[in-house]
Amino acid sequence: MGKTLKDQMGQVIVPKTVKTPPPAVILVNPQLGQNIGGAVRAMLNFGLSELRLVAPRDGWPNPAAVSMAAGALNVLENAKVYETTEDAVADLTYLMAATARRRELEVPVVGSNDAGAQFRAWQGAGHKTGILFGPEKAGLTNEDVVLADAILTYPINPAFQSLNLAQAVGVFSYIWASSEGAAPPAVFQENISVPARREDLVRMMEHFEVELKNAGFFYPEQKSALMKRNIRAPFIRAQMTEQEVRTMRGMIKALVQGRGQKKVK
Amino acid sequence: MGKTLKDQMGQVIVPKTVKTPPPAVILVNPQLGQNIGGAVRAMLNFGLSELRLVAPRDGWPNPAAVSMAAGALNVLENAKVYETTEDAVADLTYLMAATARRRELEVPVVGSNDAGAQFRAWQGAGHKTGILFGPEKAGLTNEDVVLADAILTYPINPAFQSLNLAQAVGVFSYIWASSEGAAPPAVFQENISVPARREDLVRMMEHFEVELKNAGFFYPEQKSALMKRNIRAPFIRAQMTEQEVRTMRGMIKALVQGRGQKKVK
Repeated sequence: MGKTLKDQMGQVIVPKTVKTPPPAVILVNPQLGQNIGGAVRAMLNFGLSELRLVAPRDGWPNPAAVSMAAGALNVLENAKVYETTEDAVADLTYLMAATARRRELEVPVVGSNDAGAQFRAWQGAGHKTGILFGPEKAGLTNEDVVLADAILTYPINPAFQSLNLAQAVGVFSYIWASSEGAAPPAVFQENISVPARREDLVRMMEHFEVELKNAGFFYPEQKSALMKRNIRAPFIRAQMTEQEVRTMRGMIKALVQGRGQKKVK
Repeated sequence: MGKTLKDQMGQVIVPKTVKTPPPAVILVNPQLGQNIGGAVRAMLNFGLSELRLVAPRDGWPNPAAVSMAAGALNVLENAKVYETTEDAVADLTYLMAATARRRELEVPVVGSNDAGAQFRAWQGAGHKTGILFGPEKAGLTNEDVVLADAILTYPINPAFQSLNLAQAVGVFSYIWASSEGAAPPAVFQENISVPARREDLVRMMEHFEVELKNAGFFYPEQKSALMKRNIRAPFIRAQMTEQEVRTMRGMIKALVQGRGQKKVK
């Protein structure tokens, strides 16, 4: 439909006028149907309508969600259910995780006053975006958070941090709506015209991890989860393009095959 | 306690360093205890702790509020209950009403991106502030709204405007917290050093209305509520000082007594 442009290097640029949807809200392992319903109502209040659920505890559909959704049933009915967080974010190119700062992860933090402009910059450039919210009690796992380009933090009272899930989604939805017309963020990298989809990044990292495992890299075994998170973070943070992901996979392959050849005694 | 200053006219100025509390949240005729509890939890999440209730439908205390308040029981227990909105705002000097724009009322509208800075400017100048939220179904009456200096609007989806009460309070609480350090609003009238408390304004207007009624001004009778609202709005909007309120009452009295003298045939 939309016209495509090419920059001086011949790379396709997605025109700024392409209409892409607002961020998808992704609830990871939500526990209470009433929170899903409350979240959906607040989303639609502020113009968001794409809900994704990762393995909701009480199955799906959920009558408790329906009763709290009030007039926002459309959003509930159109919700998509996934088995894993990776599946739920596969088609996205920009992803935030709503959670407290994690000192143990090298994931950049975006304050709530800047998050809306950040999303609008990506949306305006034609990209699909989303935001992760964790389950009520435990919150997002580190494995989920390292899938995100940035952590979104709220200016929360340190003495009482336990935010209800529906409220957390409501505040984000407000942040989105109130950022209409906001100036684009200074750090937005406009020149990343074809960022990799999250799925391609995950496949690349899995490829890397499999080969590292074969090479005996993950030692001791009990530290392998931590090591994998630390490996993933910089690749997400780099906001790699499709081409860079392909190149990286070629590099991994080359190292493995080269090593194999050298091993021949 | 705090030192007082005087300006060139000898008027007392409240020093900027006086520590005044954040805005009070005033729920007018709330219906569901769970919404009161949800509101309280979100308030404390974002650093607000003063709750006032005007004639809650199911009485007070309310067990349904307790179960939704999670760890914010202190805020619930310290809530004050009032019979009327006027009583609940009597000691405040700056008041907003969270509601949609009312074309029939001449009450200025403050957008949600500016509301936090506005509250902080008043708070920083040593004034007590508050915000009104209406009951779940009907929302605030026009009589409540004309008590406010400004209407706070959210950037709501026109196709789905029905915001849950606890969510509405949660979004306001976030707006408050996220405005820390915001630049003061351009329109803030720093020179109003001793604004009248809402109670004094209400008494002045009641005085005015009684005398107008005696004078046969409210005709036809069925339009008197509308006429009273229209009379009140500009006095609130003027952000009158204590002295101006006293002067105004003297003016009303003078007119009435003067008229009485002329009536002597």
